Amino acid sequence: MALIVQKYGGTSVGSIERIRNVAERVAKFKMLGHQVVVVVSAMSGETNRLISLAKEIQKEPDPRELDVLLSTGEQVTIALLAMALKDLGLKAKSYTGAQVRILTDDAHTKARILAIDEENMRRDLDSGHVVVVAGFQGVDEKGNITTLGRGGSDTTGVALAAALKADECQIYTDVDGVYTTDPRIVPEARKLDTITFEEMLELASLGSKVLQIRSVEFAGKYKVKLRVLSSFQEEGEGTLITFEEDTMEQPIISGIAFNRDEAKLTILGVPDKPGVAGHILAPIADANIDVDMIVQNVGHDGTTDFSFTVHRNEFKKAMEVLNGVKDEIGAREVIGDDKIAKVSIVGVGMRTHAGIASKMFKALAAENINIQMISTSEIKISVVVEDKYMELAVRALHQAFELEKEVSAKA
Amino acid sequence: MALIVQKYGGTSVGSIERIRNVAERVAKFKMLGHQVVVVVSAMSGETNRLISLAKEIQKEPDPRELDVLLSTGEQVTIALLAMALKDLGLKAKSYTGAQVRILTDDAHTKARILAIDEENMRRDLDSGHVVVVAGFQGVDEKGNITTLGRGGSDTTGVALAAALKADECQIYTDVDGVYTTDPRIVPEARKLDTITFEEMLELASLGSKVLQIRSVEFAGKYKVKLRVLSSFQEEGEGTLITFEEDTMEQPIISGIAFNRDEAKLTILGVPDKPGVAGHILAPIADANIDVDMIVQNVGHDGTTDFSFTVHRNEFKKAMEVLNGVKDEIGAREVIGDDKIAKVSIVGVGMRTHAGIASKMFKALAAENINIQMISTSEIKISVVVEDKYMELAVRALHQAFELEKEVSAKA
Repeated sequence: MALIVQKYGGTSVGSIERIRNVAERVAKFKMLGHQVVVVVSAMSGETNRLISLAKEIQKEPDPRELDVLLSTGEQVTIALLAMALKDLGLKAKSYTGAQVRILTDDAHTKARILAIDEENMRRDLDSGHVVVVAGFQGVDEKGNITTLGRGGSDTTGVALAAALKADECQIYTDVDGVYTTDPRIVPEARKLDTITFEEMLELASLGSKVLQIRSVEFAGKYKVKLRVLSSFQEEGEGTLITFEEDTMEQPIISGIAFNRDEAKLTILGVPDKPGVAGHILAPIADANIDVDMIVQNVGHDGTTDFSFTVHRNEFKKAMEVLNGVKDEIGAREVIGDDKIAKVSIVGVGMRTHAGIASKMFKALAAENINIQMISTSEIKISVVVEDKYMELAVRALHQAFELEKEVSAKA
Repeated sequence: MALIVQKYGGTSVGSIERIRNVAERVAKFKMLGHQVVVVVSAMSGETNRLISLAKEIQKEPDPRELDVLLSTGEQVTIALLAMALKDLGLKAKSYTGAQVRILTDDAHTKARILAIDEENMRRDLDSGHVVVVAGFQGVDEKGNITTLGRGGSDTTGVALAAALKADECQIYTDVDGVYTTDPRIVPEARKLDTITFEEMLELASLGSKVLQIRSVEFAGKYKVKLRVLSSFQEEGEGTLITFEEDTMEQPIISGIAFNRDEAKLTILGVPDKPGVAGHILAPIADANIDVDMIVQNVGHDGTTDFSFTVHRNEFKKAMEVLNGVKDEIGAREVIGDDKIAKVSIVGVGMRTHAGIASKMFKALAAENINIQMISTSEIKISVVVEDKYMELAVRALHQAFELEKEVSAKA
């Protein structure tokens, strides 16, 4: 008997029929003698419908009230799924985030999980119930409803698996696993049977839509065995996310991630002295804006230029913040561009292989794609390019690194 | 400065535009220096939409999960109204039933309020907030979400007014007050400026849709000053519900109530001995079915016939229960009829006037309407008739008692 946490996204519960299918899949695991906790998202389209209602009333909806509003989406799904499970003769009980008590901080619309009270769920599991939990939501210390931000249901799933010490956390999506890149852009893209946590972390954070980054962080931190599967296929083992030490051989590059959700800001002519990066980024952090890539080049004439990227939704706000502090930090000018895309190659094998970066840059140059920013880590190289070249860049890199081919012992 | 509780029903918050109108009305009261608590229902149509979803999954939806589902309706409204209030520059904060902590018993879909924790609301009111509370919902001792049943938002409003010792509880609806009867049936129906609690209680319980019965009970019990008003008119004092001792003169008949929400069950040939009524009704009560009229006539041949009415939705269930206990109580047969209507005349003046019943029965006989059951209290007389005669009966009685005329000192 194993304890399994399953998470189903919005598409997987997008209609009454699909909710029934999920109930039947859960029933199969239950019949095998497993204990099952199911985490669900809002039915597809529902969150957007609610956001539209909010925006009809307030151009920038109040974050606390937006969370009260959005959390109803998952609440509808848990009730319907619990009913569907009962209709199959199973014992089932639904939980909102507040009812589990998924305690979060109070950063509305992007809260972080602080603690999970597993006592009630454990009691229900032990008495044979399927426990159905609303993803994406929690409650702060004062009892205010919070949400974890888009994709937060994955995080809920992994966090519950960690709290309950589950044997496996299965993330059901509309794809059958993690691919070398998006097959809609590169038809030759190949499904990976395994991928390491570190690679997945980079792929998720860089825009692969399969798993939400915080869920991968959580899974890595608490050693949760994570598997990505299709909710529309009966068969298939999906992609297992492994710890690096478990795997004998590593491909050099596992996948190519990309996104056009970001915008670039550059602050020109900043006095080149210690502490200036902190002065620029502190007000951005205070405004609760997440920064992704940060690039500062060597200065000249006593000044330097400083660039970073933020989510495109926060571009306007970030520009306002920078213009507000421009004089204070003695900068010449603030410029921005939200017509950019980020493309990254990711692979733990990169560590032991030289020449990956130059191969990447050459492949892009061969297609006449100009690189605007570069940022590297041990297992990834990211470039920012003009957004209209994104698909072309992804295809060129997929081909250059021969990702369509099955991996043999390269390491 | 007064503390006012305002309750807006589903039609009053049925669109974004109407939610804005409610916010503007609330703002006016706030500008006058009052403290305002607003209780809202789900947007019109939403509760039915959710019930349909549930019924697609389970023919008889699980009550606990149905409450989880339905409570989202009001939760959407409180978030949107709080946003609309903030958009007008007011301070506002939304509360679900669980967040207020409206403690109820655990009778899902028809829970009763046991206690209200007013501490948080009071603190927000004192710091200048408009407090926006989800009607219709609460939470039981174990933290399960409960609902109060249809119309329960009125009860929430009155219960909050009682807990907060509010100066007035205003119930905003789509009508401008309480009428002698439904103007759609009798165009001459007249709006009452005042009506006593007892009369209102009978009118509400007998099917006048303006106020929900439990809210009137609550208001009477806790001496809450209750006023019914239109949410679509700027002017108008509505109808004030008064305590009998406050009013000098009483009309004989205040109004005519009617409904076709009931069904009649008769158990024939029951041994006529003490305790039999209890034996029949105990299993009905155990099945959580509310009984309205109860009629038992004198017996003959050692047996008697026993009739009662239940809500039409519970007719099938009640028939099953009775057939299950039929042999045990030695009855001959159980028959039922859900093609009935109940028509009642209500008035505190009835107490001091004879001949009201005979006048009523004569008026019905003049229209050839057969009376199937009769039940009386000090201030009302109810009859059950075939449902196709309902409108005719109401019109005949309105005319017979001259309710279209303004009341002068009759008492």
